[in-house]
Amino acid sequence: MNTISDAMKMSASVANQSSFPLNQWYVAAFSGELTDKPIARKLLNQPVVLLRTGGGQVAALEDRCCHRSLPLSCGTVESGGVRCGYHGLLYAPNGSCIEIPGQERIPAKAKVTSYVVTEKNHIVWIWFGSEEGSAPTHDAPDYPHHDDPKYKFGWGVYHYDAPYQLIHDNLLDLSHLGYVHLKTIGGNARQHMNAEMKVTSEGNMVRVIRLMPGTPPPPTYKAAYPFGDKCDRWQEIEFDVSHLRIWTGAVEPGKDVIDDPDRGGFHMRGFHGITPETETTAHYFWSMASNKHPDMPETIDTVIEQTKYTFDEDRVVIEAQYKNMRQFGEQAAWTDIHVDVGAVRARRIIAKLLESSR
Amino acid sequence: MNTISDAMKMSASVANQSSFPLNQWYVAAFSGELTDKPIARKLLNQPVVLLRTGGGQVAALEDRCCHRSLPLSCGTVESGGVRCGYHGLLYAPNGSCIEIPGQERIPAKAKVTSYVVTEKNHIVWIWFGSEEGSAPTHDAPDYPHHDDPKYKFGWGVYHYDAPYQLIHDNLLDLSHLGYVHLKTIGGNARQHMNAEMKVTSEGNMVRVIRLMPGTPPPPTYKAAYPFGDKCDRWQEIEFDVSHLRIWTGAVEPGKDVIDDPDRGGFHMRGFHGITPETETTAHYFWSMASNKHPDMPETIDTVIEQTKYTFDEDRVVIEAQYKNMRQFGEQAAWTDIHVDVGAVRARRIIAKLLESSR
Amino acid sequence: MNTISDAMKMSASVANQSSFPLNQWYVAAFSGELTDKPIARKLLNQPVVLLRTGGGQVAALEDRCCHRSLPLSCGTVESGGVRCGYHGLLYAPNGSCIEIPGQERIPAKAKVTSYVVTEKNHIVWIWFGSEEGSAPTHDAPDYPHHDDPKYKFGWGVYHYDAPYQLIHDNLLDLSHLGYVHLKTIGGNARQHMNAEMKVTSEGNMVRVIRLMPGTPPPPTYKAAYPFGDKCDRWQEIEFDVSHLRIWTGAVEPGKDVIDDPDRGGFHMRGFHGITPETETTAHYFWSMASNKHPDMPETIDTVIEQTKYTFDEDRVVIEAQYKNMRQFGEQAAWTDIHVDVGAVRARRIIAKLLESSR
Repeated sequence: MNTISDAMKMSASVANQSSFPLNQWYVAAFSGELTDKPIARKLLNQPVVLLRTGGGQVAALEDRCCHRSLPLSCGTVESGGVRCGYHGLLYAPNGSCIEIPGQERIPAKAKVTSYVVTEKNHIVWIWFGSEEGSAPTHDAPDYPHHDDPKYKFGWGVYHYDAPYQLIHDNLLDLSHLGYVHLKTIGGNARQHMNAEMKVTSEGNMVRVIRLMPGTPPPPTYKAAYPFGDKCDRWQEIEFDVSHLRIWTGAVEPGKDVIDDPDRGGFHMRGFHGITPETETTAHYFWSMASNKHPDMPETIDTVIEQTKYTFDEDRVVIEAQYKNMRQFGEQAAWTDIHVDVGAVRARRIIAKLLESSR
Repeated sequence: MNTISDAMKMSASVANQSSFPLNQWYVAAFSGELTDKPIARKLLNQPVVLLRTGGGQVAALEDRCCHRSLPLSCGTVESGGVRCGYHGLLYAPNGSCIEIPGQERIPAKAKVTSYVVTEKNHIVWIWFGSEEGSAPTHDAPDYPHHDDPKYKFGWGVYHYDAPYQLIHDNLLDLSHLGYVHLKTIGGNARQHMNAEMKVTSEGNMVRVIRLMPGTPPPPTYKAAYPFGDKCDRWQEIEFDVSHLRIWTGAVEPGKDVIDDPDRGGFHMRGFHGITPETETTAHYFWSMASNKHPDMPETIDTVIEQTKYTFDEDRVVIEAQYKNMRQFGEQAAWTDIHVDVGAVRARRIIAKLLESSR
Repeated sequence: MNTISDAMKMSASVANQSSFPLNQWYVAAFSGELTDKPIARKLLNQPVVLLRTGGGQVAALEDRCCHRSLPLSCGTVESGGVRCGYHGLLYAPNGSCIEIPGQERIPAKAKVTSYVVTEKNHIVWIWFGSEEGSAPTHDAPDYPHHDDPKYKFGWGVYHYDAPYQLIHDNLLDLSHLGYVHLKTIGGNARQHMNAEMKVTSEGNMVRVIRLMPGTPPPPTYKAAYPFGDKCDRWQEIEFDVSHLRIWTGAVEPGKDVIDDPDRGGFHMRGFHGITPETETTAHYFWSMASNKHPDMPETIDTVIEQTKYTFDEDRVVIEAQYKNMRQFGEQAAWTDIHVDVGAVRARRIIAKLLESSR
């Protein structure tokens, strides 16, 4: 993985070959996004309308009325489905047109594609299979921390003008914190670069653990927890094709043990759904759950606020990086350094999944 | 006409074959637009400068100085023509350069293309022939309602990021009023969809008549005329290749007869000039003339104001529709429904005109 | 040079053949631009980061970290060079990576291209040779007026959405002043068009001298110098491939002689560095130096202010011209007139330089 050719070659891929791993659950939305209005969102190159019917059911349809091509996302949600905003055709969650105002007969071809979706732990997952109409081969991922009373969470949906794998790279290599996020979750740049790092992989998962005992707590940590001068920090990153789970935090030295599964201290549980929009753009669904210190009740609001700021900083860097990749073109090779081990493994997994589907 | 391929194939058409019916008068401007400044407007892919000389003559020239290519529309209008804003070359309405400041001799090649234009009923029409320099084969259309003392009119010029035929579709099928224009000229959606409809055609014209007796007057009608709970509404639409005339209105039930040519009641006379800018964009020149109820002197201002609002709503829908057509590509077929008869006939006329010119 | 084909063909040129004269010094920046932040600037299609190290040395590097492609211009300047803002790699002015935080060994390939730059008379010049790594064959140009106590100067850097040669054309033909710059340095249009003009050339230089004795002083001249009704104006323009020097001004009739090298009166010494950004865009580095009349101490500020206004007017015209050239395409020929002699010679020089490098 010494070149940017993986990312670049995608753009040239033919229409029938997906540039993304298929037979996967991808994040389509957070539950909180689906209220009384339909949402237009392109996912893996498919223009989709996401909606919650009056009855509460979540549905994902091709975002196009079969009559005159207006996006169904310009229409209105009713109890039985979504009604087109141009001439009033009504579609059920399974994609069938079930009413054409002023016309008795509904032609058999009056229908649109529907996608398999499921809602779980406040996340709406969508299945993209390699065969049209095939059923999911496994359940959507669990993410119990959204429902764990120990935590409270906030979320955001960011659009990236950059290919999805650059976001994987960023999240799998947290050594950038000391250069990019000095004002929030950063800290001493050299301590980040010199952190003890352990990378393991299993199936399509990569796990990176980085420990930084005895380091100064960064601004967000100090704002949320009464640390002293030093803390023992950990970063546990799990990559799983369509999303990452990142558990970071710190304990007070001598009080808690940094790798005790039941350790106390200050925790940030990040969920990161990264769903390609196109070969060159992506949706980034993040949530951050944090525990509350008894003496600092406003912790979670502060953590969410600073998390937004942090992820804005990442977006600036990654979009600038991608713009530059386009500017310099494929011939501009990448020189790997010591911190790239996790990201390079994740790229190999994606490459293998794409290869096996050809 | 079950697919969007007509609109889409245009983009691929070779330069020498027009994607638009030729040997037609198209609207270039409303008279009120041509004051002391030249106007730049691309019409049927031709960049044109429109101007009224100090002497009052309307002219249309290729919008490019033959010296160094500055648009003549960046220059100034004089009594004898238009003067370039870079080095002062002066062009007559026939396209000849008639002055090069500081130089005696004017080369024979110092000239630009001029177009045939005529001004009639407050409309500036431009002729696009299939042969360069050929004279018009028929007179420009009449539109006497602009000069009828019974009416007052207002107008607007809208730019569309959508191909011209989607505007034809929209105007030939007024069943969308109940979904798109609820706040102005809409009304009960089902009554619109179930209106009695008669479609006839003759030569290159299509006429659609829709009657909706005994229906509630929509907001604009109530604002402009003292209707009661119900009125008898009519819609008469005439399509004529480059423009449509739409006569709509309502009479009070029992007082006037809905299809009496001299009927009273409330009238809206819409003129709709639809001139392609390029294969994928269009100019929409609309005017609305209305009669004044004796007790409601501000009628026409209200009607114009609400007409603007209505046509803004149409633009939002049609541009969203076209953006989606581009997104889904040619393979996305259209399923026709009962209200499409008029629009489908108009598309056949355009297709036949394009075919016969190949 | 009757067509716009030179400018247009550039876009189609293959990557390995430069569209710009090489083995030339081009302006990269004014000295005053390089403070404590790096500058990103694309020059002759090369994305370059310009910087002044803490030690004061000016450097120009390929604007891309060899690790993950972030622009180095997103990083920070240190005494020893520039540090990447993503993972902290540090680059010396010669392009070598001299530090990878957290890693002992620096791979040999960890480096970026560096460009030859030199700083002289408040101008930063960059050398673009035809062979990679070749040394400059001549010294960077002198421009002593920036250091002449007789003058004070101000400067600006403008971006043009137009190819560089259109700016040459504009500056070599000052007859446009009477049409474009009426409010500042213009004057009577006809006197400009009829000015006595002498064009000479020598090597790669073109010199245009225009004299306009007994003409009314334009607004900027009157604002800066106590002229009466008439003045004797001169314009001396020197084109030198990558830049022009323009000496204009006026003397009081009967007091000074218009072509005496030591003449008094009001002087404007313009420096115009024109550096292609791409085939279709350019950077325009201008400075204006002026002498101060003893009774009018604020002269220079007024002159700079009005010069900015003047060059804004030029940009509007030239960008409109180029947009129109693109619109009409290559087939739209140019008709030369009497004022084009200097500009046509400069185009021949560029064409010859490009030809000889193929």
